[in-house]
Parts: sequence; C-alpha cells; structure tokens
Amino acid sequence: MGKQIITISRTYGSGGREIGRLVAQKLQVDFYDKNILSLLVEKTGISEEGLKNADERLIKRSPSPYGFTEETDYGTNHYLYEAQVRLIGELAQKGPCVIVGRLADWILRNREDVLNVFITAPGEARIQRIMGYEDVDEETARELMIQVDRRRKSYYDYFTHQQWERMENRDLVINSSLLGIEETVGMISEIAKRA
Amino acid sequence: MGKQIITISRTYGSGGREIGRLVAQKLQVDFYDKNILSLLVEKTGISEEGLKNADERLIKRSPSPYGFTEETDYGTNHYLYEAQVRLIGELAQKGPCVIVGRLADWILRNREDVLNVFITAPGEARIQRIMGYEDVDEETARELMIQVDRRRKSYYDYFTHQQWERMENRDLVINSSLLGIEETVGMISEIAKRA
Repeated sequence: MGKQIITISRTYGSGGREIGRLVAQKLQVDFYDKNILSLLVEKTGISEEGLKNADERLIKRSPSPYGFTEETDYGTNHYLYEAQVRLIGELAQKGPCVIVGRLADWILRNREDVLNVFITAPGEARIQRIMGYEDVDEETARELMIQVDRRRKSYYDYFTHQQWERMENRDLVINSSLLGIEETVGMISEIAKRA
Repeated sequence: MGKQIITISRTYGSGGREIGRLVAQKLQVDFYDKNILSLLVEKTGISEEGLKNADERLIKRSPSPYGFTEETDYGTNHYLYEAQVRLIGELAQKGPCVIVGRLADWILRNREDVLNVFITAPGEARIQRIMGYEDVDEETARELMIQVDRRRKSYYDYFTHQQWERMENRDLVINSSLLGIEETVGMISEIAKRA
C-alpha cells in the first residue's frame, strides 16, 4: 500500500464514516472512529460520558434546571486534545489504518504516508441520510446538519488554526453522491494503494 | 460516458490545465481553455488584446506613464460575462467536452451531466511548476501564484456569489501531487465514465 494511513474528514450526513469503515474493511486495516473514545477512557481516566461531551466539539453541554446549557471547558478540552494527539500518533505507529475525524489529518501532518480525504455531498442528499440515521423529520435533519458541521468546524479550527471546510490540506475531496458509497470506497482504496 | 461535460477549475501552478487537456485527449472529446477567447472575438467583435485583459479577471490593466495602473471596467466585464455564458452553454450543447476555468462549473450548474473537478497542489510543488512555465525565480513564482489565484478568486466570486476556494460546489477536488499528472488524468477519466 502506498499510503499506510487514511484520514477521513466528513460533513455530517455525507456517509463519510461508513465509507471509512468500508475502506478499512476492503484494505484489511484497522479502523478508528468513535472507538478512539474507549481507548481514551483507558488513558485519561475521564468517564466515557465526560468524553462524549467533549468529542469533536469545543462546547460541553451540561444539564441545568432550564434544559441544556452550553459552556466551554477549555481545561478539559486541551487535556483531551493532548491525550488524543498522543493516542493517534501511537495508533498510526502501530500499523496501517483508517481514522475518521478527531483531527487525525492535522495530528499526523508530519508523516509522509498519510492520505487525507474529505467526504461531502449536496445538502439534500445529506438531509435524506440524516433523516434515516436519526429518524427525524426533514426540518430537524437540516438543523442537525448545520449544527453538527458548525461544531466540527469550530473544534477543528480552534485546535489546528486551519479552516475545516477549505481544501488546501486535503489530498482528495469527494462528493459521495457522485459515484455512491460503494464505488467511492473502491476509488479511495485504489488511490491509497497507488499514491 | 456518464458525465458528458467535465469542468476543471484549478489553482495556478497545479497542472490543472494540462490535466484537462490530457483528459480531453484520453476521452477523445473537445477541449476548451484559452481558445474560448478566439471564439469570443468572433462573437463580440472585441479585439483579442482587449479580451486577454479581461480573461478570468475583473481588473483591466492599462498602461500609464507610471507603468501599469489597474482600473475596473464593469461594463466590459459584464458584457463579456454574458457573451461567455451564451458561448459556454452552446459549447456544452454541441457535445462532450472538457472546459478549463471561465466559470464553466457555474455557468453549466443546471445541467445534470457535468462533473466539476478542482485541481490544486501544495504551494511548493506549484511554485516549482510556475518557475518552469514562466522561467522566473522562486520568489517571483511565489508572488505570481498568489496574484493569479487572487485574481481568479475575485473574478469567480464576483460573478457567481460563491467562494472559488471552497469545495461545496465541486464533485471532486484533487491534489495533483498525490498521483502525479498521468494517473490523475486516468482517475478523472475513469470517474467521468462511471459517474
């Protein structure tokens, strides 16, 4: 394989996580996405619930008598970020893998064997997919799409000082609606081998 | 062929024009880039020199006793833009083709058979290529890269009300350094057939 590590960034509802999982399956390499959280639980001792609140977001949601309020918790954020940097560095060192999200493209920027892919799709296709994931109506799906992307962007931009939605640091940006999930998986796998 | 029309947008020095030319050759379809200017000369009666000054830029450069000054000429710009919209619509109607730049992705946005590709590459690779094109030193190449991209962006953003460097309206964004020119050409041709 030409590129040992594939990082997948993705807009919400684009199918990027699924594509990453299938690429790992096809290339028979390790796959990391939310399971990075369990690994961080072991490393940091922070509860899984606490980690979920800080996963790919800057803002921690806390219950209050008035529903949920959002408050920033920079200390925890930075502590987790540092733990994640070490962990992702170790995972990449362990062997070929696919990593979805978690700033992996940025964390591994000094390695030569990394293919950075960004998956997106037109808004309408993403809304349809979110309606399926979350069993919500169209309006809610649209709102979720906007909010999740905004959260991912602010998390990414904060730690990387780059802009999440810009293409400069990506090797490949693909609209998953173009070829569909299966052929997109084939294409990424092929490129990773040849690059 | 799945997609009949391929539009190529590109950062300066990315090899995008060359890639477009080779894709057209490989797929045996028409190729349009600067030759659109000669076609516009026939249509508009504006001199080729006048068109060159307005090609993919908003600002027209005029000689002055103090060297070159830059002045906007909105009338000519809009007149040319309208002529270009008609011309590119007609070219797309004529048959399968590859069109480099000239807002073709935007102009043809309502067609279903268009593949919108954006080619870029890391700054260092682009500077090396520009030094070759223009026979200039590294510093000049870097300055040219910044200026040409800025000019393309302001032209694109002005007429499309979109942002040239963002990936939302592209189907595929490729770093040409990843696979090199030849394999990138193969990949785009393959995707156009399958999509």
